[in-house]
Amino acid sequence: MTIAIVGGTGPEGSGLALRWARAGETVVIGSRDRERACRAAEKLNALPEEVGSSARAAAISGEENQAACQSAEIVVLTIPFSGHAEMLKSLKPALRPGQVLVDTTVPLAASIGGRSTRTLGVWQGSAAEQAAELVPDGVRVVAAFHNLSAEWLRLDGPVDCDVIVCSDDQQAAQKVRALARKIPGVRALDGGKLENARIVEQITALLIGFNIRLKGHSGIRITGLPRESYDI
Amino acid sequence: MTIAIVGGTGPEGSGLALRWARAGETVVIGSRDRERACRAAEKLNALPEEVGSSARAAAISGEENQAACQSAEIVVLTIPFSGHAEMLKSLKPALRPGQVLVDTTVPLAASIGGRSTRTLGVWQGSAAEQAAELVPDGVRVVAAFHNLSAEWLRLDGPVDCDVIVCSDDQQAAQKVRALARKIPGVRALDGGKLENARIVEQITALLIGFNIRLKGHSGIRITGLPRESYDI
Repeated sequence: MTIAIVGGTGPEGSGLALRWARAGETVVIGSRDRERACRAAEKLNALPEEVGSSARAAAISGEENQAACQSAEIVVLTIPFSGHAEMLKSLKPALRPGQVLVDTTVPLAASIGGRSTRTLGVWQGSAAEQAAELVPDGVRVVAAFHNLSAEWLRLDGPVDCDVIVCSDDQQAAQKVRALARKIPGVRALDGGKLENARIVEQITALLIGFNIRLKGHSGIRITGLPRESYDI
Repeated sequence: MTIAIVGGTGPEGSGLALRWARAGETVVIGSRDRERACRAAEKLNALPEEVGSSARAAAISGEENQAACQSAEIVVLTIPFSGHAEMLKSLKPALRPGQVLVDTTVPLAASIGGRSTRTLGVWQGSAAEQAAELVPDGVRVVAAFHNLSAEWLRLDGPVDCDVIVCSDDQQAAQKVRALARKIPGVRALDGGKLENARIVEQITALLIGFNIRLKGHSGIRITGLPRESYDI
């Protein structure tokens, strides 16, 4: 299974690439500029393996965004909201039915010059629902990874955060929850329909506020659910 | 310090009353009907003390809503959103400058016959901001306790949930964070300005979705912040 990370040269995309490669997944970093993607991949490949890890990390490669998508079963979007709609339109010819598109985008007001602690209203309800409107028929959109701090992903060791996964396609959601669990420390939860992404996206703005006010890299954990909730 | 709980005969209000009384606070349960308020208070007073607790629980009393507010430094609103604006208008003569009004209201679509996993759009941004518009000048509005499961509050022992406190009045917010910490297990966090209540309110709809899908009583914890963040 190949995972393409569109906008994978940024901190969130690179962090996810690193963690999945360490779990043995085949990861392609996508960028508008193939050279930049390759350089970002090389940089990640050059990082020392995690101390105490027995797994052999897979090598990350770089590609232009469209080419990265063509080879992948799972396409992960990690781009600023300002380029979200345009990027999806440009990816359209490279996407095909059956592929899973994972949208991590948060419509932060910062993406158009406002505050990173506020979100923009998206007509469809959320960035993920905007994505669902823009992908070709049969592409299965899943919203996830919004609340996972890029700073944690770039460090070694487990992250202290749950991943809430929202989708109208149960099978695709399950695939993405399994992928989330490959990141040490992550528990992945069924967040219900894609429409719920509007709440999960906004939580990120709240977390950014905590980071600014209280100086940290915050995340969330959902408590009070049966243990098996985190394994299905 | 007296705490009035408007709508305190409901599960969330009763749960908060119980926990604060056990922490030695003077609590008045408010209801439209004074008799009903008194009966709810008596029922809570009749519960056995928490096993192993050394603190002596204070007695809870009951009052009609307006009378309850008049005697209180802190007024806590625990009512369905459908009655929110009307209740605040009716309380107006009983509220006075300097009082802290804690709004726990979540604008669930269920309050007008929709789903409990969806929220209504509130013109002001959140129920708490609607409250801020409706109280007399000088009443300090604080949003808190939205994500705290009533089921947990009614049990003995610590709850596994953080309370995110949003307000434009720093001093009032600090007072409410201190009150939140009197509930065993609760960590109270500075959620920033009152406008952020719109996110905290919506998290409740997400948690209700978890409860339905995964069968539990969910709550949230904010991770990744310095330890002292939970004590200021």
